[in-house]
Amino acid sequence: MKATPNTTSEPAVVLLSGGLDSTTVLAIAMSEGFGIHGLSFRYGQRHSLEIAAARRIAQRAGVREHHVVDIDLTLFGGSALTADIPVPKDRDLSPSAASAKEIPITYVPARNTIFLSYALALAEVIGASNIFIGVNALDYSGYPDCRPEYIQAFEKMANLATRAGVEGKTKVLIRTPLISLSKAAIITLGTSIGVDYSDTTSCYDPSPTGEACGRCDACQLRLKGFSEAGLEDPIAYATAPSAAR
Amino acid sequence: MKATPNTTSEPAVVLLSGGLDSTTVLAIAMSEGFGIHGLSFRYGQRHSLEIAAARRIAQRAGVREHHVVDIDLTLFGGSALTADIPVPKDRDLSPSAASAKEIPITYVPARNTIFLSYALALAEVIGASNIFIGVNALDYSGYPDCRPEYIQAFEKMANLATRAGVEGKTKVLIRTPLISLSKAAIITLGTSIGVDYSDTTSCYDPSPTGEACGRCDACQLRLKGFSEAGLEDPIAYATAPSAAR
Repeated sequence: MKATPNTTSEPAVVLLSGGLDSTTVLAIAMSEGFGIHGLSFRYGQRHSLEIAAARRIAQRAGVREHHVVDIDLTLFGGSALTADIPVPKDRDLSPSAASAKEIPITYVPARNTIFLSYALALAEVIGASNIFIGVNALDYSGYPDCRPEYIQAFEKMANLATRAGVEGKTKVLIRTPLISLSKAAIITLGTSIGVDYSDTTSCYDPSPTGEACGRCDACQLRLKGFSEAGLEDPIAYATAPSAAR
Repeated sequence: MKATPNTTSEPAVVLLSGGLDSTTVLAIAMSEGFGIHGLSFRYGQRHSLEIAAARRIAQRAGVREHHVVDIDLTLFGGSALTADIPVPKDRDLSPSAASAKEIPITYVPARNTIFLSYALALAEVIGASNIFIGVNALDYSGYPDCRPEYIQAFEKMANLATRAGVEGKTKVLIRTPLISLSKAAIITLGTSIGVDYSDTTSCYDPSPTGEACGRCDACQLRLKGFSEAGLEDPIAYATAPSAAR
């Protein structure tokens, strides 16, 4: 996955977190021939590894441009990812477990709505119809803003929010190619179109040297996905993960 | 309009721009007995007068807290309010004029969507159902994100985006008490409930000393509103305005 930026094709916005899902989405959008405008957010994360990963991934993929926007979500607190709340470890995420049905403390209030709103602004300025986001309703069923009905409602709102809604110009499409795929299916799909997952980072609580903890929800889901896909996860883990690998 | 913060009543979020409309909305929300969490944005405006006005207005009203959030909309450009594009002056805004039907260059792409998304995050964290915004469909018919159908679509999306949508908790209401009022009716209503408009600022292009230009769309609409309401606009103008005063 190494290319030179495409400067003539139809533009599209791709939300890039540096994670496994958005990296796969980027490859899908590139494979459709779009000129990619990547968009990442510094939102008071505990670490800047995500941004560094997103930059590397965007550069290797040959995006047209990559914006990194500062937004201050810590102001609002309320999540283990933005406030001083410990990241949960070793949770039972099997579908039958009670904890799998709760909204996790790692949920950030209205995060995807804020991210998609910025993407909408960028899309309107560059004249893009397609906004890609790597949400997934299966593994993250506890996050309200990863569900198909939410995405549909956002898309409808987006088309009323912008010039498109008044002048009947560019119609906004929120593209969610991963929404109904399992983590294993995402990894299988990505690998088949050449995604190199060694640059991606998923861990909610990595070590100071950048190794994944192997125990938070994100690590558990990632490891289970690679295991079910019959592939080796190329990134480094700080501890021998408890999940099957 | 001077009060001490209400610390026990139901919380509500009020978007405060320092302008005439949001100041009226704040007074309406206070009159309903809510404990107010004001929210303002520094979004690359050409001047910081708006934020200073919002701070004064929030303090005088006795809000519970007032957040000022930095967001970088200049990244996206595309508007006379955020990019290096001159603010139009002396436009013909009569309903029959062609220019009154266009989307003005002062439209900021997806601005209200971004503002409301932050308000949604804050509302979720503090447990507020009511989000107040001073949009107006009549004077600003050219702004897609001031129309009732947009607000309805945002509200629907908001209820799917948050814990409310999954756990059936707090229902989100986007409150737009001014949406169908004329500027004159807004001023009459505000004056009747004690709003002091001398702290408000509306001009898109004020002088370095803070005087309103009297010629941009916002000044024209404001002056026409005061004139039709039969009231004197208490703020200072740099030039004798062309509109009836």
